[in-house]
Amino acid sequence: MSEPSYPKTPRNAINRLRNRGAYDFQTAHGIINTTAVLHVSFAPDPTDPYPIVLPMIGQMGTRTEPHSTDLNHPMDLYLHGSISSRIMKLSHEAIARGDHGLAVCIAATKVDGYVLAHTPFHHSYNFRSAVVHGHATVLITNKIVPERWQNTRTPPNQVELQSTNILRVRVFSGSAKLRWGVPNGDRADLKNQDVLDRYWAGVVPMWETFGEPICAPSNQAPVPDHVRGFVQRQNEENRRVALEASEEQK
Amino acid sequence: MSEPSYPKTPRNAINRLRNRGAYDFQTAHGIINTTAVLHVSFAPDPTDPYPIVLPMIGQMGTRTEPHSTDLNHPMDLYLHGSISSRIMKLSHEAIARGDHGLAVCIAATKVDGYVLAHTPFHHSYNFRSAVVHGHATVLITNKIVPERWQNTRTPPNQVELQSTNILRVRVFSGSAKLRWGVPNGDRADLKNQDVLDRYWAGVVPMWETFGEPICAPSNQAPVPDHVRGFVQRQNEENRRVALEASEEQK
Repeated sequence: MSEPSYPKTPRNAINRLRNRGAYDFQTAHGIINTTAVLHVSFAPDPTDPYPIVLPMIGQMGTRTEPHSTDLNHPMDLYLHGSISSRIMKLSHEAIARGDHGLAVCIAATKVDGYVLAHTPFHHSYNFRSAVVHGHATVLITNKIVPERWQNTRTPPNQVELQSTNILRVRVFSGSAKLRWGVPNGDRADLKNQDVLDRYWAGVVPMWETFGEPICAPSNQAPVPDHVRGFVQRQNEENRRVALEASEEQK
Repeated sequence: MSEPSYPKTPRNAINRLRNRGAYDFQTAHGIINTTAVLHVSFAPDPTDPYPIVLPMIGQMGTRTEPHSTDLNHPMDLYLHGSISSRIMKLSHEAIARGDHGLAVCIAATKVDGYVLAHTPFHHSYNFRSAVVHGHATVLITNKIVPERWQNTRTPPNQVELQSTNILRVRVFSGSAKLRWGVPNGDRADLKNQDVLDRYWAGVVPMWETFGEPICAPSNQAPVPDHVRGFVQRQNEENRRVALEASEEQK
């Protein structure tokens, strides 16, 4: 195996359009780390058939130093942001039950362009998506002093929960799916001069643009270089990837 | 009730930062209809604790004509695109069991800007998100001739499943959450001249931009007006919303 990858199992296998699947860490984690919002799903209750899916902010990292990509030292996904008390509570309960954490599935998706073909059937998006499975635990005092959770007054109260807002997900499975390149066409259409004359086909590249920074009313400082630099670099990079996606087949 | 809304229940209630919650159809469905990719979650199997979340394309519509917003005539969410055979199979099985369809939860999220405050704790996104719950069924011959499903050779084979790619979700619950406006600040920081002089605070607006259409190699037609018009209108509208989000408190 040339690069670290998730083993292909029934859970993560891409079954439709297999050639679009990828299992290597770099592809899957790269998509996650450049996506502004991840979508995290979990089951609220074994007696409730409806899962929940919520937007959260997240970033891949490693639990071990130096950096390890061995699957015995799985990659961690740190979730932050508007984390509901419910996902915290469920994560605590899973640990209390003796589970590895709350079972979660997390998706990251980037649209790189609209693919407009000669016929409706071949319309598509250029996109990159990643889906991972793992176990979520709350980063709290257990990290500092092992077994503090079991040896303190639990569960946390409302105020305590609301001031704790990092979840660590130990990822054990993952895959990515990509579609890049020009539109596909029906073989007959591509030989039909009438179709080719009448209907345009191509890609409209799409990317996330950052605008001119807008100062807060409280602000008295000039827009700093790190903010201006971020906007410029990100805009150039996002545009570059979308244009590359419009041309390069994947 | 001034406008049609989802009833507030434990399933859809926004408990954290309640003032950011919205339950009206217009807000929730507007977010869904302007989001390029929705994230759809479902449980693959009652014995498997891990839900699945997948990116799909979707649009709200009504099953009844004329347009009805009565909750007794619930809104439908039509899902299209890279729909896995699994979600199709599970939807069929749910109906065969006598359920209303496969239990799903669907999220749509738009990031409108990065909110950079004087202190890390108050950093945030400007965003709009919607989450709905419903039951998914496969749009197949039952729509044309009622009860055809029960009266034909089922389940569909692999080829049949793969050529069927519309799911209808009858939505029974939903809500939206929004954060717009300038950064929040710690009261003490806002009175601290040293903080105000040293640290910039503001919003970097963010939106989806469409680039110049790129012709397919097979293409022989000029870029048509409906494509050019789409790019121009969408870019203006997306930028307008992101700038509005940077100023207007929500």
